[in-house]
Amino acid sequence: MRMVDIIDKKRNGGELTQEEIQTFVDGVVSGEIPDYQTSAFLMATYFKDMTDAERSELTMAMMKSGDHLDLSSIPGLKVDKHSTGGVGDKTSIPLAPIVAALGIPVPMISGRGLGHTGGTLDKLEAIPGYQVEISESDFLKQVRDQGLAIVGATGNIAPADKKIYALRDVTDTVDSIPLIASSIMSKKIASGTDALVIDVKTGAGAFMKTLDDSRKLAKALVGIGKGVGMDCMAIISDMNQPLGNAIGNALEIKESIDLLKGQAPADITELVMTLGAHMVVMSGKADDLETARAMCEKTITDGSALQKFGDMVAAQGGDRNVIDHPEIMPQAKFKIELPAKTSGVVSKVEADEMGIASMLLGGGRQKADDQLDYAVGIMMNKKVGDPVKAGESLLTIYSNREDVADIKQRLYDNIEVRDTAEPFTLIHETIR
Amino acid sequence: MRMVDIIDKKRNGGELTQEEIQTFVDGVVSGEIPDYQTSAFLMATYFKDMTDAERSELTMAMMKSGDHLDLSSIPGLKVDKHSTGGVGDKTSIPLAPIVAALGIPVPMISGRGLGHTGGTLDKLEAIPGYQVEISESDFLKQVRDQGLAIVGATGNIAPADKKIYALRDVTDTVDSIPLIASSIMSKKIASGTDALVIDVKTGAGAFMKTLDDSRKLAKALVGIGKGVGMDCMAIISDMNQPLGNAIGNALEIKESIDLLKGQAPADITELVMTLGAHMVVMSGKADDLETARAMCEKTITDGSALQKFGDMVAAQGGDRNVIDHPEIMPQAKFKIELPAKTSGVVSKVEADEMGIASMLLGGGRQKADDQLDYAVGIMMNKKVGDPVKAGESLLTIYSNREDVADIKQRLYDNIEVRDTAEPFTLIHETIR
Repeated sequence: MRMVDIIDKKRNGGELTQEEIQTFVDGVVSGEIPDYQTSAFLMATYFKDMTDAERSELTMAMMKSGDHLDLSSIPGLKVDKHSTGGVGDKTSIPLAPIVAALGIPVPMISGRGLGHTGGTLDKLEAIPGYQVEISESDFLKQVRDQGLAIVGATGNIAPADKKIYALRDVTDTVDSIPLIASSIMSKKIASGTDALVIDVKTGAGAFMKTLDDSRKLAKALVGIGKGVGMDCMAIISDMNQPLGNAIGNALEIKESIDLLKGQAPADITELVMTLGAHMVVMSGKADDLETARAMCEKTITDGSALQKFGDMVAAQGGDRNVIDHPEIMPQAKFKIELPAKTSGVVSKVEADEMGIASMLLGGGRQKADDQLDYAVGIMMNKKVGDPVKAGESLLTIYSNREDVADIKQRLYDNIEVRDTAEPFTLIHETIR
Repeated sequence: MRMVDIIDKKRNGGELTQEEIQTFVDGVVSGEIPDYQTSAFLMATYFKDMTDAERSELTMAMMKSGDHLDLSSIPGLKVDKHSTGGVGDKTSIPLAPIVAALGIPVPMISGRGLGHTGGTLDKLEAIPGYQVEISESDFLKQVRDQGLAIVGATGNIAPADKKIYALRDVTDTVDSIPLIASSIMSKKIASGTDALVIDVKTGAGAFMKTLDDSRKLAKALVGIGKGVGMDCMAIISDMNQPLGNAIGNALEIKESIDLLKGQAPADITELVMTLGAHMVVMSGKADDLETARAMCEKTITDGSALQKFGDMVAAQGGDRNVIDHPEIMPQAKFKIELPAKTSGVVSKVEADEMGIASMLLGGGRQKADDQLDYAVGIMMNKKVGDPVKAGESLLTIYSNREDVADIKQRLYDNIEVRDTAEPFTLIHETIR
């Protein structure tokens, strides 16, 4: 079987067989297929898409190209959550302890941030001592003992995806639904979870800018999951403005803890409760979403979720005093307000630009090996729909440098105050 | 300017600027642009095509990437002919002396054959002593002195095209009109001609199988030529069945000489006269095609074209005795007839399969470094529309091996004898 014939079949709109996809993935991993053929294939796939069967085959072939976790030593049905990434999206951090507090094991494998989006692992590392890189056996033991863990991937997860992803980035084939979906799902399936709730972000701060594209991606992800026998569903949630008020590593940990104390902004709380309710229903611990949601809310009021969070932090080497003393995390030297220039209603807060501002302050990475400043970031004081008076602070910049004129200009350019604002919708759709 | 942005612009259907195309071509030649980006760009181009302006810019950038001939030392307007290649297409060999006999300088740079199509240079090398590789200064001198030369390219012609072509072959991006057209035209423009008549083949034995695709290619070629200020036109001629009766190197030289004696089959004669008439009109030596054609025909009847052919052969080191003694060229040991199995009318002779049969006899190359047997090939005794009786010879196989059972089977499989045949059209269209 020649790779040029596989390219030709895809280019002409044919459906690839399992064998053809396996040949492609094997050849990528072994290096037998040169990059120039892989990139031609990726571009052909960009234009010609893949059927559900092809997407599942590609996902499984990439998954099987590397290590995968065996969670069978953890009793019970394991439910994971995946987000396509956004600005201020600290959802996993409060969600894992809420679900774990209900007796559902949460073995969560997370990632780091790049560009305008933050990463769950980076945020957790703002907690003094917190270790995200732990061995597979310690990870499994912690989930058995504590009911939850949030760690980085260990081992050689989906090396085919790593090679393909690196090529996609430089050959303009990143934004292809079958390639995005198989890349995400190959890694999630390798993590060994039984069920998965996917949070597909939509809007200015998301990878998918339009609801239509987000819907296509959500359907692709759920389709692949179901195609390989995983219980899987997705919600599409808004990422036009940042999620919650906090953007930046330590700031987002503080907001996550606030959420577990019942003191977080409405939007992030609503999203966490919605995702939690879906996870509880999928785990079989509740029959319907209303019951599941009430169960999740009770873990806040009875303090059990906060307790779980502390247990997890402590188990992973972190200082659980962070719960009552967030100031043990790195603190910014300067807090600089951004006063509104006019009175009105906040009509737009561009999520991606808020994320870039936080990155430029040092809170995010422009390149994969950039060092992070955990202290810095942005706290939104006003969100879309909020009334504001001229001179009132729109947001607070947390910085370790005094001169942030460039950042202020960027922020002003990307926040609109008008007479009215469009109504804001947090959760657009549910895809099963 | 980043290559990934150039890929992105093309992928999204944008029109590339001269600067962007130049950056691409420069990067390909210098090696700064990796092959995986080039192949992604080629596949995006396959899907998104190129505008006339982009095609001309790409052609010129590829042309300028290497050497190009300066024909200014040859007085008069130089007219060249290019064929997209077919089976039995020896057109250039009689055409050049016909046109040169009318005082129009013909500096012709030709190629070699690969696969089922033969090459003009290979055919000429069947003449004992004929040198196709001569220096640029000798080439120019010969055209000044004799009025014509048919040689191989010297120097480093369009290295960008060489690199891109090699990648296209292994990334399934060969059959893209803008890529085919710019590849052809970059080399023709580098040859320094003032005007160009293009013979685009169509049908089973041609690169373009359908009239529609052939028309697109013809328009693309003419469009590029005009875009860069070259006088340019094309005809679309049939390549469903072989052109003329002879397929194979020495056999085609003999048929070319026969044509110059007025003794060649009707189809090849008609095509040569048509192309010749266009070249004469483009040179300004005649005002209309009828006059031009009569002038071409006169070079046959008065023997001047045959004289020119002999002059060219002699000037390039060949033995002009070949004109009256074609047997000085290599001769096949065996002549094997292929008798018709039924009576009727020849309704199909698959050109590509006839070419492959000749190649398998040793007359063509399967790989670029295969050695040729000049003696072998096929002489068609019947062509489409000819009546045939069972037992009558459809064709004669010229072979240096006695057992040609495999070849005979292949030939039988690809010649149809039925009750009737569709009327045959040699020249389908003229594109200006």
